[in-house]
Amino acid sequence: MSGPTRSIRWAGEAIDIIDQTLLPAELRIVRLDDIDAVVDAIGRLAIRGAPALGVIGGYAVALAARLHPPATDGDRFARAVERVRTARPTAVNLARMVDRVALVAESSGGDPDKVLAAAHEIRDEELQASIEMGERGADLVEALVPDRSVRAMTICNTGGLATVERGTALAVIQTLHERGKLAEALPVETRPLLQGGRLTTWELERMGAPYRLAVDGAGPFLLARGQADVVLIGADRVAANGDTANKVGSFSLSLGAAHAGVPFIVVAPESTLDGMTADGAAIEIEDRGPDEVRTALGHPLTPPTAPAVNPAFDVTPHSLITALVTDRRTVRFDRGESIEPLPNAS
Amino acid sequence: MSGPTRSIRWAGEAIDIIDQTLLPAELRIVRLDDIDAVVDAIGRLAIRGAPALGVIGGYAVALAARLHPPATDGDRFARAVERVRTARPTAVNLARMVDRVALVAESSGGDPDKVLAAAHEIRDEELQASIEMGERGADLVEALVPDRSVRAMTICNTGGLATVERGTALAVIQTLHERGKLAEALPVETRPLLQGGRLTTWELERMGAPYRLAVDGAGPFLLARGQADVVLIGADRVAANGDTANKVGSFSLSLGAAHAGVPFIVVAPESTLDGMTADGAAIEIEDRGPDEVRTALGHPLTPPTAPAVNPAFDVTPHSLITALVTDRRTVRFDRGESIEPLPNAS
Repeated sequence: MSGPTRSIRWAGEAIDIIDQTLLPAELRIVRLDDIDAVVDAIGRLAIRGAPALGVIGGYAVALAARLHPPATDGDRFARAVERVRTARPTAVNLARMVDRVALVAESSGGDPDKVLAAAHEIRDEELQASIEMGERGADLVEALVPDRSVRAMTICNTGGLATVERGTALAVIQTLHERGKLAEALPVETRPLLQGGRLTTWELERMGAPYRLAVDGAGPFLLARGQADVVLIGADRVAANGDTANKVGSFSLSLGAAHAGVPFIVVAPESTLDGMTADGAAIEIEDRGPDEVRTALGHPLTPPTAPAVNPAFDVTPHSLITALVTDRRTVRFDRGESIEPLPNAS
Repeated sequence: MSGPTRSIRWAGEAIDIIDQTLLPAELRIVRLDDIDAVVDAIGRLAIRGAPALGVIGGYAVALAARLHPPATDGDRFARAVERVRTARPTAVNLARMVDRVALVAESSGGDPDKVLAAAHEIRDEELQASIEMGERGADLVEALVPDRSVRAMTICNTGGLATVERGTALAVIQTLHERGKLAEALPVETRPLLQGGRLTTWELERMGAPYRLAVDGAGPFLLARGQADVVLIGADRVAANGDTANKVGSFSLSLGAAHAGVPFIVVAPESTLDGMTADGAAIEIEDRGPDEVRTALGHPLTPPTAPAVNPAFDVTPHSLITALVTDRRTVRFDRGESIEPLPNAS
């Protein structure tokens, strides 16, 4: 349960994370020992991925409860919680899990052990959710693509780095690989920050899975040419009607999949479902400013002050999504199913 | 007619080109004084763009006719012609214009002045074609997007660098700008070689046009959010039925435009129309190998031996194209029109 590449680890009075900005060139663990460091790591995407953001959000509250005990230092604790909660807007998990652990802090009078236990619980839930999503998603893919090994396109990084271990969409690909049913993964590189090219390739190599990388613009064309049997993506937020915010470029792949008649599957834990947001139009899309577009790997590519628009996410309407796979269920939008409230949903 | 930034210039016994791999950081003219240098420049995309490839193809035959007079050195001349002709496969202009000038070499007994005159003629035709396409395309856009300034999305570089001056799709944007009708250009960056981010931004800044750059994956989403009124692309080869090979990522924008109900217009000179190729399925798509995908601006981004698929072009079916604008006509696919042979087509 504690391999050296787990994306996040509680380290006593601090949080250890893999600095994902340095991969694949360097595997460096950085220690975050105050709230400034946590907020900075989230902002510069040293840690990213909706489930991972939920886990670090929980641990950040646990850290804040130790550094600024709510019973004696309530204002600073509240400010710390709010800073972490709003460090990134699109992924629902961050604010949700911060709130969940902050509630434990409040109800327990700031008991640091109870607060930490609540954060550990989130981690354990996400670990289990990844296993469940992998199995459930692989079952669905095998049903939709019978009698052959699967060529699976994906975008961004949805593996262990984006969760705690295994991942969401990439957990499905890993499970297919473990079942001997993966012919090839086809990650697209995911500009501007290249999480597909840097992180997903690195994870696929570690699991020994066959793959070929492509640029984002090639995805829909490769689908049109019959190069993939399924598209699997993660999610940063799934609205009540199934509209899905995910890394920018996902919508483009959904159009390509629909045009090619290829199933398009969203894989996300229940913790990423946001029943309080009616549809995609209501999801806030983070614009991360021009610098990421003006550069590649930190090197300038445009004229120095080139104006740029940089939506970090896009929204795929549920009408273009074949199915949503969570850790607890499969919702077939292509069969007219919708997301119903679960009796025991978190 | 001879500004310092013309992409190609005959220089007596050599060809001068702008080395487009160095832009926007450096504007360097390189002199190509033998066929090896020409083939190398084409292969590494120091010169690119279908019309520009046609022009340099013509000049390369003129250069070969001087270095290896066909009358006395026929074998070497023929080998030189063949090497240039096949330096890149997808753009029809290169082979076509090489053939056209080689025919003059044959019919004139290798007269170097007549051969050079044939090459100059191609350049002059492309110069005039860019002016015509700009006017005709801007007229169409103004008709399709009445009563407002236009926000025009485009991909790759289709400006003066891709032709001789002004360009194809970017000539339309430039003409709109000169008419005071351009609200904003929205180029996408065009991975892997970033011609949109490096070259189109540079040309837009030189013409003083307002613009914002976006990553390729954001194009369809920006269209869905109503951020552009029209998509304008160039072409490397237009098949007889209107299917269009262009830089990879174009097909993705065509899907986004269709989904958003935005006109999608191909702008290409008659010299890029290939009536001998029935449809898109018959167009050879160049795969340029994994290195361009493994790197950005020459810097590695993946694990060192990451496998990659790198189609340099894609094919947009004519069913997703609103209209084709050439230097001589406008073909409205959206109205059921088709490309008819012209009485005087080159």
